[in-house]
Amino acid sequence: MAKVAVLGYGTVGSGIVEVIKTNQELINQRVGDEVDVKYILDLREFPGDPYEDMIVHDVNVIMDDPEVTIVCEAMGGIGAAYQFTKTALSKGKSVCTSNKALVAEYGPELLALAKENHCSYLFEASCGGGIPIIRPLQTCLLQEQVVALKGIINGTTNYILTKMELEGADFETVLKDAQSLGYAEANPEADIEGYDVQRKIAILSSLAFGNTVFYKDVPTEGITKITIDDFKYMKQLKATIKLLGMSRYEDGKYFAMVAPFVLTKESPLYNVSDVMNAILVTGNTLGDSMFYGAGAGKLPTASAVVSDVIECAMNPGKTIKGTWKPEKLELSDLSDAKRRFFVRIANANEEAVKVAFGHVQMLEPVYDGEVAFVTDVMTERSYKDIASAFDVVNMIRMDS
Amino acid sequence: MAKVAVLGYGTVGSGIVEVIKTNQELINQRVGDEVDVKYILDLREFPGDPYEDMIVHDVNVIMDDPEVTIVCEAMGGIGAAYQFTKTALSKGKSVCTSNKALVAEYGPELLALAKENHCSYLFEASCGGGIPIIRPLQTCLLQEQVVALKGIINGTTNYILTKMELEGADFETVLKDAQSLGYAEANPEADIEGYDVQRKIAILSSLAFGNTVFYKDVPTEGITKITIDDFKYMKQLKATIKLLGMSRYEDGKYFAMVAPFVLTKESPLYNVSDVMNAILVTGNTLGDSMFYGAGAGKLPTASAVVSDVIECAMNPGKTIKGTWKPEKLELSDLSDAKRRFFVRIANANEEAVKVAFGHVQMLEPVYDGEVAFVTDVMTERSYKDIASAFDVVNMIRMDS
Repeated sequence: MAKVAVLGYGTVGSGIVEVIKTNQELINQRVGDEVDVKYILDLREFPGDPYEDMIVHDVNVIMDDPEVTIVCEAMGGIGAAYQFTKTALSKGKSVCTSNKALVAEYGPELLALAKENHCSYLFEASCGGGIPIIRPLQTCLLQEQVVALKGIINGTTNYILTKMELEGADFETVLKDAQSLGYAEANPEADIEGYDVQRKIAILSSLAFGNTVFYKDVPTEGITKITIDDFKYMKQLKATIKLLGMSRYEDGKYFAMVAPFVLTKESPLYNVSDVMNAILVTGNTLGDSMFYGAGAGKLPTASAVVSDVIECAMNPGKTIKGTWKPEKLELSDLSDAKRRFFVRIANANEEAVKVAFGHVQMLEPVYDGEVAFVTDVMTERSYKDIASAFDVVNMIRMDS
Repeated sequence: MAKVAVLGYGTVGSGIVEVIKTNQELINQRVGDEVDVKYILDLREFPGDPYEDMIVHDVNVIMDDPEVTIVCEAMGGIGAAYQFTKTALSKGKSVCTSNKALVAEYGPELLALAKENHCSYLFEASCGGGIPIIRPLQTCLLQEQVVALKGIINGTTNYILTKMELEGADFETVLKDAQSLGYAEANPEADIEGYDVQRKIAILSSLAFGNTVFYKDVPTEGITKITIDDFKYMKQLKATIKLLGMSRYEDGKYFAMVAPFVLTKESPLYNVSDVMNAILVTGNTLGDSMFYGAGAGKLPTASAVVSDVIECAMNPGKTIKGTWKPEKLELSDLSDAKRRFFVRIANANEEAVKVAFGHVQMLEPVYDGEVAFVTDVMTERSYKDIASAFDVVNMIRMDS
C-alpha cells in the first residue's frame, strides 16, 4: 500500500488527484499494490469538493504519518516547497514534483538527501510538461554520449511566435491575446525573457551530460526583440523562428544557451507549433530522436507527476538511480561556438556587408536601406567583432 | 562485471559491438560495473576484423560460459534465433534483441521463460529502430489508459510514399529506386504489403494495452494500391498518405489495423518523411505524445539494443518488470470502427454519389468521369455496403 500526500491543491495538485482517481484500478494493477491519495495540503478550504475530507492545513500531519511514503509537491516556488521537500526526504518519503524552479535551484542537494534516506526525488513533469523526457534521458539513452539537446520547452513563447508568424500580428498584440486566453501570465517576464526555458535546459543538460549545469550560468535571451519583419524574411528562407533551450558537446567542450533561433523546414522542430513542446536529443551513435507533446496543462503535467509516483510505489525503500551528479559542468564561452547568423543591418549597402562578412546569402530587403543576409559559419566572437561596425537592426542565430 | 555475447555479426550485430566499444567508458561509469563483449557468434570467419579473436562458431561456448550474463540476439528469423534465445533464458542469461519477428511470434512465451529464470527478455530495438518507445511505454505511461497508438514504423514504405508525393513518380519506379539505395529489400513484400508493420503494431499494442495482440489477428493492407493520382487529390485536401500501424481503445472495444491513411497537416505525424519513423501515443489523461527518430539503420538499432544491455547489467539476477501479459486481447471487428473515407469512383456522377453517401466533401476530379470525395464519419460496414454499388477506383481511410 502506497499512500500519497499532495502538497498544494491548485491546478497541478488537483490534476494529480484526478489522474490517480481516474486511472486508480489500472495503476493499482500495474504497480501490484494499492496506490491512493491520503492527504491534500492546502491553506484554503474546499467546501463541496469530492476530496474535501482529505484536506489538511498542517504539513506535520503528513510528515508525521508513517503510512505516507510518497509526497507530490505541487506548491511551486522555492520557499515552503523547499522546506517541505527536505523534511519529507529526510523522513524517507519520496517526493515527486513539477517544480522546475526548485529542481533547478536545489536539484543536486535534494537528490543527495533522497539517496541518504533511501527514497527518491523525481521531477518528470518539470521539463516539457507531459512529455516523457526526464525518464527516457536516464533510462533509454545511457548508451549514448549526448552531443546536442534542443528544446522548444515553453508553450507561451511558442504560442506567441506561432501567432506572429501565421497572423502577421506584432509581439505586444499577441502577448495580450495570450494573456486573455490564459496562455501567458499577467507578469509574463519569466516566459518571454527566457528564464523558464533557462531553468528547464539547465535541468535537461544536467541529466544528459551527468554533471550539474547551474541555470544562472546559461546565457539567456528572450523573444521580445523578435518582430513581424523578421518573420517576413523567414518566408524567403523557408524557415521559422523558435525560442530554443539548447546545449551541445563539441570537441570536448560544453555549450548551453537560450535564445531565439532560425529553424529551417528540415528541422524536426520546425512544425512544433502553438503551445506544443518538443525536445530533440542527438546521441553520438543513435543520431536524432525527438520527444513531442503537451508542454503544459493541468492533466498532462499531473500525468507526468503520477508516472513518478508509480515508479516510487514500485520501488519502496529504494532510490531510483539517476544520472545527475553534483559536480559542476564547466560551460565554455559561447564566443567560441560556431554557427551561421541571420542579420539585418540599417543604413548600409550590400557591398560594405560583403567586404566585412565575406560570403553571405543576401535576402530581399523588406525596407529601403536595410541589408538582410545569412552569414557563413563563423564564431560568435567573429560575428560580434565584424557586426560592431554596423547598425544592426536584429540578429538571430541559425540553428543549422 | 557483465560479459556480453553477440549472436550474429551482420549489420545489427556489428553495430552492437561498435556502440559498446565506442561508448565503453561512459557505459561502465553509468552502469557502475564493467560491461564488455566476450563472444561474437557467427558461422563466418572475419579475418582482419578488430574483434576477430572474439568470434566463435559454436553457440555452446557461450551458453556454457557462466560469465556471460547477457546475450544479444542479432540473427533474425524465428528458427535458430528462437532456439538460442530459449537456451540462453533457461540458463538465466538475459536476452536483448531487435528481432521483431521472434518477439511478435513468441513474445509471451519468452517473457515467461525469462521470469522463471530471473533474467530478462528485452526488445527496445524491435519497433521503431533507435526510437525509445518500448521502455517509455512500460515505464513512463503506466498511469495512462492508452486510447490510441498510431505509428509510422516502416522506413521503406515511408520513403516510397514520400518520394511519390514529392517527385510525382509512380510506385514501381520509386520501389526500384529504393531497392538500389538499399532502403528496400530485393523481395520487398514484407515491407510494402505491411507485414513488417503488422508485427510491430502487434508488439506495441500488447505493451500498451497489457494483453497479447497476436500479429496475425491484425487486418493488414499495404501500399501497393496507392497511386500518384491519389497524391494529386491530397494536394486539394492539404494532406498526405502514410502507412500506419494503429490500434485504439474506444467504448470498451479494442481495434487494430495496418493500412494507408490520409493524414492532414494538423497531425503531428504529417511531417514524418523519408525513412524516419514516429509513434504517436494518446493517453486518456496525458493526451498526445510522440516519439520520433531513425526507425532503422545499423547504429540507431544497435544503440537501442545496447540500452537494453545496460538495463540488464544494472539489474543482475532480476527480471525487468513489463506490462505484456500472455492473455489474448480480443480485437473487435473493424466493421464497427467509425471514420471518414477518401473515395474515388469511376463511371459515376456526383448526384448518384450524394444520394448514396449523403453529405460528402466533393473534390475536383483528376479524370473525366471520376468522382472523388471524402465521406462524413461512418462505420466501415456502412461504407462497404454503400460502396459495393459503385465502381471504386480507390478508398483510403482518413486518419481524423
